[in-house]
Amino acid sequence: MIERMRKEIHTNASVVKGSGDDCAVLKFSRKYYQLFTCDMLVEGVDFRSGENPYLVGRKSVAVSASDIAACAGIPQHCLISCGLPKNTPLKYSDALFRGMRDIAKEFGINIVGGDLSRSEKIIIDVSLLGLVEKKFLVLRGGAKAGDIIFVSGSLGGSLKGKHLKFTPRVKEARFLVKNFKINAMIDISDGLLQDLGHILKESRKGALVYETRIPLSSAARNLNSALYNGEDFELLFSASCKEAEKILGSKIFNFFPVGKITSGSGGLKLVDKTGREKTAILKGYRHF
Amino acid sequence: MIERMRKEIHTNASVVKGSGDDCAVLKFSRKYYQLFTCDMLVEGVDFRSGENPYLVGRKSVAVSASDIAACAGIPQHCLISCGLPKNTPLKYSDALFRGMRDIAKEFGINIVGGDLSRSEKIIIDVSLLGLVEKKFLVLRGGAKAGDIIFVSGSLGGSLKGKHLKFTPRVKEARFLVKNFKINAMIDISDGLLQDLGHILKESRKGALVYETRIPLSSAARNLNSALYNGEDFELLFSASCKEAEKILGSKIFNFFPVGKITSGSGGLKLVDKTGREKTAILKGYRHF
Repeated sequence: MIERMRKEIHTNASVVKGSGDDCAVLKFSRKYYQLFTCDMLVEGVDFRSGENPYLVGRKSVAVSASDIAACAGIPQHCLISCGLPKNTPLKYSDALFRGMRDIAKEFGINIVGGDLSRSEKIIIDVSLLGLVEKKFLVLRGGAKAGDIIFVSGSLGGSLKGKHLKFTPRVKEARFLVKNFKINAMIDISDGLLQDLGHILKESRKGALVYETRIPLSSAARNLNSALYNGEDFELLFSASCKEAEKILGSKIFNFFPVGKITSGSGGLKLVDKTGREKTAILKGYRHF
Repeated sequence: MIERMRKEIHTNASVVKGSGDDCAVLKFSRKYYQLFTCDMLVEGVDFRSGENPYLVGRKSVAVSASDIAACAGIPQHCLISCGLPKNTPLKYSDALFRGMRDIAKEFGINIVGGDLSRSEKIIIDVSLLGLVEKKFLVLRGGAKAGDIIFVSGSLGGSLKGKHLKFTPRVKEARFLVKNFKINAMIDISDGLLQDLGHILKESRKGALVYETRIPLSSAARNLNSALYNGEDFELLFSASCKEAEKILGSKIFNFFPVGKITSGSGGLKLVDKTGREKTAILKGYRHF
């Protein structure tokens, strides 16, 4: 459905990149692009009704901040649309709001308004604006054959807790683009392989992923949960071999090399510990 | 709840006006401010499941465009978050999208992305960016005692159809600020008196509304439906007596004078056809 829509949409010259990346990229000033993104959380899909409302509120803003990070930008202003059931306790909505407010403060995001509606299930949609220096913008489509693929942290089992507590990797992304040449980047919301698939599709490339190189989180049950689980919100990016060497030497943040970009005809392949290659199945976590 | 939140939110110097007007107003360039607004439509609250999906899609974008108009701006870019039930027919979602696309085209709005989720009821949240010349920005808080109050069209009975088919008054608002000095403006989403109440509160003023001057729409059952019904999405604005004379002489659009701004102590009063004043009860349409 999204694909169908995308084909029919025409945008004017003030849109550098419309639908199809982590953020829309808009003309802003001589030095900067503006980034624009939104994410909707639905009770029963993205969180459960019994989960801590403070953390749900926090997550609602963090998910969009992670999109800004994926384009290497700085989050700035957000609007929050909220649908709440009629009898929502004030204690619940207060906690929800405190979670939003605290993460906004942590990342210097201005909450500049919103819309409050009645709905049967809790719905939170956050739209977020950010800025990125033109020279620092990173999109999904820039991966080159030979690039090393990195992730910014351990993966898997996010639904056990991390999906509500993750830190959007804004600082890490800014560090990367200020110090290295990053060719392609995305945040891992759908799962490592699924999101790598997005980079490969936009870049028209293939990839090898080395199973033994995947950093497993303590919550990950097994390798598959690190490959296919969503909502880790780590950065997934690629850089040339030469840049990769420098990235590996970085002492401020720890980035994990997990594979390399190949020519488009290669597809996405997993390499197991014996060195055997197999084509990856892109199932992953789908929001719809 | 919104009031509670508003008090706790601190924004930095890049925010000219945060929560509390039709749009957030953000610093943009030497000449322009950026406007930022969002509106959430919920099935069963803002539209019924049986209503024409093309018109529902149209409305979802039109409501936000009306907010941009209320600040005298030009709409530019939007993101659309959509929650749809699992078994939504493709025919329905296609029609929804065509409605969005067509009104976006009509108003030169770029659809630059969005988010698609699963939800039990249909939810559409549109966030929209716009631009306004600094000199043309109009907010709710600028009404002055002695100002004449105008509306841009007939009022009442919108739920019979207009709420799905209204035209956001972007052209009218631009015409007004380019040709006259407008002191305060809002779009009528909650009802004439309710929204006039918002202007009065922000401007710390009172008002007299002349019942005989209210332009009744053909769908309005009676005067009360024109005073209290929401979703007309006409402009409600005030300008000095001197400007009002010029506005009345305008031949391109028809604006209807409905009352005047008084000092704050006067409150909001209705004047009936015999000249008797009575204090207005602000019930109106409430979204929550």
